[in-house]
Amino acid sequence: MKDVQNEADYRNLAINKVGIRNIKYPISVLDRAHAAQHTVADVNLYVQLPEEFRGTHMSRFVEILNRYQREIDVRNLDEILSSMREHLHSEAAYLELSFPYFIEKHAPISKASSLMEYNCTMMASQHRNGTKDFVLTVKVPIMTLCPCSKEISDRGAHNQRSLVTVSARMNNLVWIEELIELVERQAVLDLYALLKREDEKFVTERAYDNPAFVEDVVREVALALRADPRIEWFTVESENMESIHNHNAYAFVEIDRRVPARKT
Amino acid sequence: MKDVQNEADYRNLAINKVGIRNIKYPISVLDRAHAAQHTVADVNLYVQLPEEFRGTHMSRFVEILNRYQREIDVRNLDEILSSMREHLHSEAAYLELSFPYFIEKHAPISKASSLMEYNCTMMASQHRNGTKDFVLTVKVPIMTLCPCSKEISDRGAHNQRSLVTVSARMNNLVWIEELIELVERQAVLDLYALLKREDEKFVTERAYDNPAFVEDVVREVALALRADPRIEWFTVESENMESIHNHNAYAFVEIDRRVPARKT
Amino acid sequence: MKDVQNEADYRNLAINKVGIRNIKYPISVLDRAHAAQHTVADVNLYVQLPEEFRGTHMSRFVEILNRYQREIDVRNLDEILSSMREHLHSEAAYLELSFPYFIEKHAPISKASSLMEYNCTMMASQHRNGTKDFVLTVKVPIMTLCPCSKEISDRGAHNQRSLVTVSARMNNLVWIEELIELVERQAVLDLYALLKREDEKFVTERAYDNPAFVEDVVREVALALRADPRIEWFTVESENMESIHNHNAYAFVEIDRRVPARKT
Amino acid sequence: MKDVQNEADYRNLAINKVGIRNIKYPISVLDRAHAAQHTVADVNLYVQLPEEFRGTHMSRFVEILNRYQREIDVRNLDEILSSMREHLHSEAAYLELSFPYFIEKHAPISKASSLMEYNCTMMASQHRNGTKDFVLTVKVPIMTLCPCSKEISDRGAHNQRSLVTVSARMNNLVWIEELIELVERQAVLDLYALLKREDEKFVTERAYDNPAFVEDVVREVALALRADPRIEWFTVESENMESIHNHNAYAFVEIDRRVPARKT
Repeated sequence: MKDVQNEADYRNLAINKVGIRNIKYPISVLDRAHAAQHTVADVNLYVQLPEEFRGTHMSRFVEILNRYQREIDVRNLDEILSSMREHLHSEAAYLELSFPYFIEKHAPISKASSLMEYNCTMMASQHRNGTKDFVLTVKVPIMTLCPCSKEISDRGAHNQRSLVTVSARMNNLVWIEELIELVERQAVLDLYALLKREDEKFVTERAYDNPAFVEDVVREVALALRADPRIEWFTVESENMESIHNHNAYAFVEIDRRVPARKT
Repeated sequence: MKDVQNEADYRNLAINKVGIRNIKYPISVLDRAHAAQHTVADVNLYVQLPEEFRGTHMSRFVEILNRYQREIDVRNLDEILSSMREHLHSEAAYLELSFPYFIEKHAPISKASSLMEYNCTMMASQHRNGTKDFVLTVKVPIMTLCPCSKEISDRGAHNQRSLVTVSARMNNLVWIEELIELVERQAVLDLYALLKREDEKFVTERAYDNPAFVEDVVREVALALRADPRIEWFTVESENMESIHNHNAYAFVEIDRRVPARKT
Repeated sequence: MKDVQNEADYRNLAINKVGIRNIKYPISVLDRAHAAQHTVADVNLYVQLPEEFRGTHMSRFVEILNRYQREIDVRNLDEILSSMREHLHSEAAYLELSFPYFIEKHAPISKASSLMEYNCTMMASQHRNGTKDFVLTVKVPIMTLCPCSKEISDRGAHNQRSLVTVSARMNNLVWIEELIELVERQAVLDLYALLKREDEKFVTERAYDNPAFVEDVVREVALALRADPRIEWFTVESENMESIHNHNAYAFVEIDRRVPARKT
Repeated sequence: MKDVQNEADYRNLAINKVGIRNIKYPISVLDRAHAAQHTVADVNLYVQLPEEFRGTHMSRFVEILNRYQREIDVRNLDEILSSMREHLHSEAAYLELSFPYFIEKHAPISKASSLMEYNCTMMASQHRNGTKDFVLTVKVPIMTLCPCSKEISDRGAHNQRSLVTVSARMNNLVWIEELIELVERQAVLDLYALLKREDEKFVTERAYDNPAFVEDVVREVALALRADPRIEWFTVESENMESIHNHNAYAFVEIDRRVPARKT
């Protein structure tokens, strides 16, 4: 059968990325405790397509995904990308994995155990010239309490669920768990799936004692990320699902320690 | 050209609903002040298909939508359904419209004006035998403050954005605005797009003074709906986007005044 | 500490369902081959709340989820529901689990292996009076090719991805795999994550040889479901993501074998 | 009342963007025919926050949105951004508007009229130093037919709905309508909400006669965009909702005519 994809192309236009998108696959991710965590990923796989070819071979992406699904690990993404470049004869390969990741947490007073879900994304790429890129993103739901509301009100203060998203480029291994812990430590008001009554009292008072604007949250998290020598570039955003409005408050910071002056 | 849809079908199986789904169309809805409100609807249109026909004629649904888009009104849904039944030679016709609806609100103290968005759905149907059905659904975002958290904590109380959804069958015209006002009056803690500092103080203290469980909210709204003689059947649900968890608290009540005993 | 939820309520209004919603949890589902399939579920858990109580105890739902997460099975849902009723002192308990489920498939010609994702939902409930309910829902993506387009065109025929959703109440165990296989057998044009060139030729020609309206698909699936004595009630819907429109074609059938005449 | 947001901040960290997100507002957009098109936008508004201030004033964003909602126009975005910078005392302002936009189309043979929906986004920013940015994005649903499938199969060819997304930076006014028409002309297989039988024959045969890979679509659209001297930078992506798979095929091209060599 004729291989139409392999036909020569005369339009002189390379394609930055071509591949498959939104394929769901069960994967196994190595966690910090060196145990395999089973989860389900939404996967995008692309390669660069040189100007001389008409198309890529989509089925090969699925074959590669099949081969590696059982053990996806920060440390073998490079091997997967090399395999993509080789089997698809390409100069560059791109991989994006998004998946729910679960961490066992203990309630602050009762110590009752439950699992918290964090959405994570790994975006990795590799070029023939040796350039590599890896961005890890974690989404950490927290609680925030409005300092202005507390200050001006005779009683109470409005508070809400917020979502902090951190993306980072690193020069050394940083575990998903480390990024999540950093955000929860700086934001102070972390969440739990299970809270007993004594825990609810604790987290309510802790919230009232730790008011923070969306601006405060991104600044505190950004300062902690900047202080970690392994993290070279990062963005922090926080989105508050305001309890007094039907829209969200939002703040975003980007810091690139690889360049002399901060990019604005 | 052969009309394949019109072929006879020998499987002896009528189809309850067949039609088009998720078509977006600009519509104009008559509001209580008798002005036309321009919005964009997500539309589903179906008819019943008798067992003797193989298929329906999908293009006719779009023709009917075209004809009525400029003026959708609780009072002409019946005419639209009749038109569907007639042009598609069907015993029953179904129409579902979901759209954002905006109401101007004034902040409680500053009286600053802004628009609040409420998602609404109209589901209507009509059978040849004279049976008609019409369900109006409104989604009203509110704020809730946890009574337990307030009671057990020395200071503060966790609160959050909640979404109250009411669906109602009526024996007489009830405006979208009336249903929304009923929910906001019972839930007490209604939202605004625009609040100045004096308003923020007011809504924070009002929240602290009016704690309500998700169970309280659905009960208060249900009692008010039950007291309105125009409303014969309704469901009320409320979903709290808990600030202390990453999951939601939920309550649901259904009351049918058309039957002697309440359906559980 | 005061148990505010346990306070007496004087509004004389029982609540049909109260509980937690949209909590994500890793679960393990027993598959037909008796192996555990790891996946991630979106979970809703509710109980009925009698009119004399003000509120339920939300943390107990999470404790129960914690206890059973490792082994969710059609055959232990009843035990989970009993546990919910007991720990929450309720007359009725409701459980809803939605999760991606993967089945290994072999391409029709090359026999190349890959995993297909099917979204499944289990909805179960139990009342003190002995009434039980269990509805299994599977979503099966297929391909459909328009018979009208094929008939009237000199060449080609438009085709598209469709999604068939079956919900069923059964009087005997029916595996998820069985429902999926039934839909794929009736719809003929099933999908694969991985197709080699010889498979693509096969599925293209198979599609051209098996045109079916959205009406045909729901009828064929409905007839097969009606012929299975284990299935007492079901709905079948199919939604075609039409390639020639930006909206979808849709059909829906409901059949209840428990009642003499079919509900329309 | 104390203005907590105005407090001095000592963390020495400016915030790139702070503001409100996901507020829905009815807007009126001027179309090419110089008529106002009523639609509903999802709006994000941000400003840069200097390092010396603790917070911004969220209510002012809503006040500005209130003032301009009746007439949003490519030509007054700059005025809105200036107003944001002025009222929020900021060096930089950002505005993002996403909305459904409707264009009347006539079916190819019957000339029957209907409205097609296109999702559009306008992203604009302005800095005190005079730097401005404006990116217009349009999403154009089309049909694609697989050249490989047509070549290797004895009959038929699989085809599907695809979504082409173009983002462009321009040195001169380009109407939304122009970008959409360019995509539809290059992709050949454009969609309609309403097609009569003679139109369905036409579009089916047109599709069979114009097979194109996802790679072909992005290349053809990219070449046409590159040939327009008003367009200085653009990205084109296309995503095919494959009829033979449950995942999508994807291609992406970025071209920057402002720099000597193309960015890969």
